[in-house]
Amino acid sequence: MFKKRENVVEIEEGNLLSPKFDNEGLIPVITMCSQTKEILMHGYMNVEAFKKTIETKEAHYYSRSRKTIWHKGKTSGFIQKVIEIKIDDDQDSVWLTVDIGDGASCHVGYRSCFYRSIPLGPIDNGREVKMKFTEKEKKFDPEKVYKGQPNPTKI
Amino acid sequence: MFKKRENVVEIEEGNLLSPKFDNEGLIPVITMCSQTKEILMHGYMNVEAFKKTIETKEAHYYSRSRKTIWHKGKTSGFIQKVIEIKIDDDQDSVWLTVDIGDGASCHVGYRSCFYRSIPLGPIDNGREVKMKFTEKEKKFDPEKVYKGQPNPTKI
Repeated sequence: MFKKRENVVEIEEGNLLSPKFDNEGLIPVITMCSQTKEILMHGYMNVEAFKKTIETKEAHYYSRSRKTIWHKGKTSGFIQKVIEIKIDDDQDSVWLTVDIGDGASCHVGYRSCFYRSIPLGPIDNGREVKMKFTEKEKKFDPEKVYKGQPNPTKI
Repeated sequence: MFKKRENVVEIEEGNLLSPKFDNEGLIPVITMCSQTKEILMHGYMNVEAFKKTIETKEAHYYSRSRKTIWHKGKTSGFIQKVIEIKIDDDQDSVWLTVDIGDGASCHVGYRSCFYRSIPLGPIDNGREVKMKFTEKEKKFDPEKVYKGQPNPTKI
């Protein structure tokens, strides 16, 4: 289904899908909310997840912490309905636009995984950088939704 | 300047910046246009690029093809003025919102690197997937702007 990557002009200027998966067989994915245009998450897909996302129109990822394909929302109920998929110039990253209704995307409970902003300007090297929370309230209680499943965040 | 990553609750619920760089010392970056909300590019930063971006308020990346820090727009003139930087729940990816005015971001000449969309629905395994161009015209001629510099796209 994927065109073999043979030359740069075809990859950049052609219309055939020939994605580049990295040494672990993954391609990074940017997921945007179709309503608010906010970034919901940054994830990865393997070939199978990419194909399932195109075919089922529901976002599938590859979970690097659980080392398995991951149908987003299967546990939480927050399925991501795919509105559009785009790929970049050298075809090594994917931009997914999804509809999550009034749902959430972040396993911590927020709507978006990007709920903190970093102050701009000079940093004193010894100083820690204090971020600002941009989401005030969680959309759900992760302990209730995930019921004792291991947290995917790794140190 | 970065808090040491010591426990998951601090990383997810805390307000101190403690980004996770991968085995190559990189963190993936999503770059969004502040005006149109389109995704302009997907890149990577190392510690130095991340710090320079925060401090100078101009996007710096790490070029994996050229293996060097990369002040975006230094050659093309299309500097990215940083409006906001966010980090995700486990602090292993960054969302940059930037102002590029009437400029462009893609080395192929388009405004966004994501100028092709992938059709949704069942794929015949033997069939190649034909994409649709969503940008009709290039914003600049890369041959004029980059004058014989090597193309960063790798097969």
